[in-house]
Amino acid sequence: MSTLNLHGIVPPVVTPLTHDYKVDKPSLRRVIKHLLDGGVHGLFLLGSTSEVVFLNAQQRADVMEVAVQEAGGRVPLVAGVIDPTTDRTIAYARQAKEMGVDGLVVTSQFYTRTSQAETIDHFSYIKDAVDLPIVAYDIPVCVQLKLARETVRELYDRKIICALKDSSGDEGNMRMLMRDFAAHPDFAILTGSETLVDYAMLGGAHGNVPGLGNVDPAGYVRLYNAAKAGDWNAARAEQLRLIELFEIVFQGVPHTSPNASGVGGFKTAMYLMGLIENRHMSRPNKVLPDAAVEKIRSILTSTGLL
Amino acid sequence: MSTLNLHGIVPPVVTPLTHDYKVDKPSLRRVIKHLLDGGVHGLFLLGSTSEVVFLNAQQRADVMEVAVQEAGGRVPLVAGVIDPTTDRTIAYARQAKEMGVDGLVVTSQFYTRTSQAETIDHFSYIKDAVDLPIVAYDIPVCVQLKLARETVRELYDRKIICALKDSSGDEGNMRMLMRDFAAHPDFAILTGSETLVDYAMLGGAHGNVPGLGNVDPAGYVRLYNAAKAGDWNAARAEQLRLIELFEIVFQGVPHTSPNASGVGGFKTAMYLMGLIENRHMSRPNKVLPDAAVEKIRSILTSTGLL
Amino acid sequence: MSTLNLHGIVPPVVTPLTHDYKVDKPSLRRVIKHLLDGGVHGLFLLGSTSEVVFLNAQQRADVMEVAVQEAGGRVPLVAGVIDPTTDRTIAYARQAKEMGVDGLVVTSQFYTRTSQAETIDHFSYIKDAVDLPIVAYDIPVCVQLKLARETVRELYDRKIICALKDSSGDEGNMRMLMRDFAAHPDFAILTGSETLVDYAMLGGAHGNVPGLGNVDPAGYVRLYNAAKAGDWNAARAEQLRLIELFEIVFQGVPHTSPNASGVGGFKTAMYLMGLIENRHMSRPNKVLPDAAVEKIRSILTSTGLL
Amino acid sequence: MSTLNLHGIVPPVVTPLTHDYKVDKPSLRRVIKHLLDGGVHGLFLLGSTSEVVFLNAQQRADVMEVAVQEAGGRVPLVAGVIDPTTDRTIAYARQAKEMGVDGLVVTSQFYTRTSQAETIDHFSYIKDAVDLPIVAYDIPVCVQLKLARETVRELYDRKIICALKDSSGDEGNMRMLMRDFAAHPDFAILTGSETLVDYAMLGGAHGNVPGLGNVDPAGYVRLYNAAKAGDWNAARAEQLRLIELFEIVFQGVPHTSPNASGVGGFKTAMYLMGLIENRHMSRPNKVLPDAAVEKIRSILTSTGLL
Repeated sequence: MSTLNLHGIVPPVVTPLTHDYKVDKPSLRRVIKHLLDGGVHGLFLLGSTSEVVFLNAQQRADVMEVAVQEAGGRVPLVAGVIDPTTDRTIAYARQAKEMGVDGLVVTSQFYTRTSQAETIDHFSYIKDAVDLPIVAYDIPVCVQLKLARETVRELYDRKIICALKDSSGDEGNMRMLMRDFAAHPDFAILTGSETLVDYAMLGGAHGNVPGLGNVDPAGYVRLYNAAKAGDWNAARAEQLRLIELFEIVFQGVPHTSPNASGVGGFKTAMYLMGLIENRHMSRPNKVLPDAAVEKIRSILTSTGLL
Repeated sequence: MSTLNLHGIVPPVVTPLTHDYKVDKPSLRRVIKHLLDGGVHGLFLLGSTSEVVFLNAQQRADVMEVAVQEAGGRVPLVAGVIDPTTDRTIAYARQAKEMGVDGLVVTSQFYTRTSQAETIDHFSYIKDAVDLPIVAYDIPVCVQLKLARETVRELYDRKIICALKDSSGDEGNMRMLMRDFAAHPDFAILTGSETLVDYAMLGGAHGNVPGLGNVDPAGYVRLYNAAKAGDWNAARAEQLRLIELFEIVFQGVPHTSPNASGVGGFKTAMYLMGLIENRHMSRPNKVLPDAAVEKIRSILTSTGLL
Repeated sequence: MSTLNLHGIVPPVVTPLTHDYKVDKPSLRRVIKHLLDGGVHGLFLLGSTSEVVFLNAQQRADVMEVAVQEAGGRVPLVAGVIDPTTDRTIAYARQAKEMGVDGLVVTSQFYTRTSQAETIDHFSYIKDAVDLPIVAYDIPVCVQLKLARETVRELYDRKIICALKDSSGDEGNMRMLMRDFAAHPDFAILTGSETLVDYAMLGGAHGNVPGLGNVDPAGYVRLYNAAKAGDWNAARAEQLRLIELFEIVFQGVPHTSPNASGVGGFKTAMYLMGLIENRHMSRPNKVLPDAAVEKIRSILTSTGLL
Repeated sequence: MSTLNLHGIVPPVVTPLTHDYKVDKPSLRRVIKHLLDGGVHGLFLLGSTSEVVFLNAQQRADVMEVAVQEAGGRVPLVAGVIDPTTDRTIAYARQAKEMGVDGLVVTSQFYTRTSQAETIDHFSYIKDAVDLPIVAYDIPVCVQLKLARETVRELYDRKIICALKDSSGDEGNMRMLMRDFAAHPDFAILTGSETLVDYAMLGGAHGNVPGLGNVDPAGYVRLYNAAKAGDWNAARAEQLRLIELFEIVFQGVPHTSPNASGVGGFKTAMYLMGLIENRHMSRPNKVLPDAAVEKIRSILTSTGLL
């Protein structure tokens, strides 16, 4: 295991917002308590699900402050330091270190079109600047570059990264990576998928970063524990229930973008469950329409969460 | 013409950097003088060519401060306020207004996957927040969304935008847009292409935002003037010379990403011409290798710039 | 000029079909007469607009038989020999030679994912097998591979191809190609665009392969002649009228795929103009709905064709 | 189970070729015997791995003739009838029925850009024309259209298809499909992946169509049987060995296209194992270079096949 001991269920924590788009700290405390009560093994602050690219420095500081207070020392806290380019990412990395998180989550550059070689330099400069463990975050749908198998290996060999969050959707490549790293258990590979966790665990993944884990952390912990115990029938059954629950992310489309429909689905469910005060998303995203709310309520009921 | 009177050659100004990655103000002053001496009709600060997404708020302020001092009142100054999402863009838009520029250049959201409807809301919120004319910047290669023909029209009809910088590479769609807006001369359409300016002018474009205009502003002004005068033979001849010059952007590849090769080509040329102190780019981009420098020197010579 | 003397307006001839999906020879004769009466400089049989990949060997033979009878010797006749892979393409190339056409139009392989090197071999094997001039057809939207600038050059230098039909939509690359070949007038470059013909002619193109030329060949010939004469105002005016006419291709969407909407628009217009007996397309494409027909009738009227 | 009883390991049979590109029938007989001896549950003739789009009608007939003779009645034989458009596909479907196969494998249209609605019509027309069970083949990397979840469902509900071969690489969507069809065991879902078979079986897949199964059918049958028996540790161990073996498909790149590298890897291995006379592929694909052959020999040795 890496110094971070990153493993198990590490939800990307949703960021509750007030009516005037500030971080809703009481709601965030409730969310973190809900996650810890659910038995999660770590928290990933300021990931894509948190609306991180919508949040300014103050909002990001607020999120980390609350999380460190609520969870610090109990489970590893990693924070996304996601911004388009290297030195702007370093500024957020310094902030994250000051706020007391345990590790950083870093993507490739975006908006600017980059290359594997420049991506390696990007990670290297960040590592040089800020002494915290780094989790590489492979999310080509957002940044337009897929981390090559060779890039991940070089970043590990040069001791720049200690873990990978794979949200690429390329399960075949992730499977080869897990095989490549089988003899290097200090490198943690976590899947970003909500619906293929039993698969990934069978393949040797160390854990999972499920956005849907905000809604049902205990379900994901049960899934993880069953898989760790080799009880694949139980793991699959839990996964199937969670796939049913995952339908909440599709209720906004086609009128809402997939991104807003997904985060909107999580926030709507958490609102209906009494975890957050309201279901606002950052502008320009709009709250889901009433029909979607009713559909989500019905899914929560049928999956045992309401 | 719009209140901005945006037309003609409006180069996206390169941002010279010092060895420690601060804005190199003396070099920037020389660049702006070079552009104004070349006869350009406006300046586009903080565009993609300026490395805008690499620059923090201080660097962006420095660029605008120098430009307003050097050029303010002589030609329209528009500034890119490019950041992933709406409210972060608004923060930069407020900064730009305070710095005294004449208009804003705004892209769709990026990193987050968005839709045409959310993009319309994005522009609308920015317009509501900051009272400056807005140029829509269509650059799908960076933001992954192409502004639909209908989106541009709705933003114009709702008086949210007054101009379009089209860097989409979709000349057919831009042609249809120019036809759509033929009866609305208050809406300015400028092409972002360096190599198809005579085409765009023939099609009715109001101007051009050429990165290569940093190197040879006078050439682009000659091209524009010839086209305006209907002297298409002269326009084409000048365009062909500039296409030859444009080869400077390909000298870094394949070892350098296209983005770094392009900006690196411009900076190398401007360095060889004595306009900027050094040819650093923002990290992680590296200066072009020696072989590329020599090739660029030779192109500058053959095109009459050295 | 190449041995083919391919230049000017070379429409990709639509294939009229009977109710039972045979080639409607009388209608095809009328179409070819219409094109020749319009003054076109060549005919491109069995291109994408002809529904070539829907047609079997008998249908292809029927098309070539009629065209050679009607037009043979009056203008150059080139025929698409479009099939997924090399040897199947060669079989169609042999058929085309037997039918008496003057040249072949060849794409990259498709369905199978190929490379620039394999594409060069593909063209080379076809040239070795069948002694006819070859036009390279760059249409990445159909075959998923863009012919690289270097590939086109190598195929020319090795005397494998004598012309290029560029339907890639990458006007910047086509412009560089035209500059590359400026000293090689035996290599003909034709644009596949309906809406950017004046642009391409200004850039040095030798001609145009407009699907819309089936509907209004005389309009495209006027456009070509004006451009050849350097009367860019007249060329632009004709182009703008043809852009208005081009709206007929968008009337089927969103319910119809862009492909069926485009060919359906051409066939509907030709039906309304009395050129073809009915407006059937190959299965599974459906005739355009009544609302589209009325819209197309109205466009034909406003552009002077009805 | 469907009338086809398609399940288990159904390799897409490689097509051995002679030096003059005819079907090498003795080699094909050896391959089929090798597969049946390995215990496979069905044969998929004329799939992508068979170079189907390179083969003409005679070659396709030869393949089916040999296979029906060697395997007819022992296991289900399905045949790809892959061609760009509907009626040309129907012609191959009629041929396949005449040759005596048990079912057809059908993709969406390609080259022509199509839609979900037109794809449904495409399958429907084929079903109407030829009375054989149809397996839908989802392979967007070749045909550019992904079969939507709703499309698969409609094709099933209308009794047009009885099975799906999913080679889309979208494991999340396939997982949702398997959940959708959990109550419909007459619909068979098979994965086209070589490296994620244990995953797919855990998710409820009925079987697998592994190109690599040509090389090691017994290994895939062991994997399938272990998974069916719920022995996931054994399944995973076998899968890991097969992932190691799968490295044979990467030995040609970057000089060879991924397609030719993959089929070339299979043919080279089968040649080294004495199954086929030579390792030719259809033109323009070239046999793999010597270095690749040696690497493949070494992989075969380390995985116990040589």
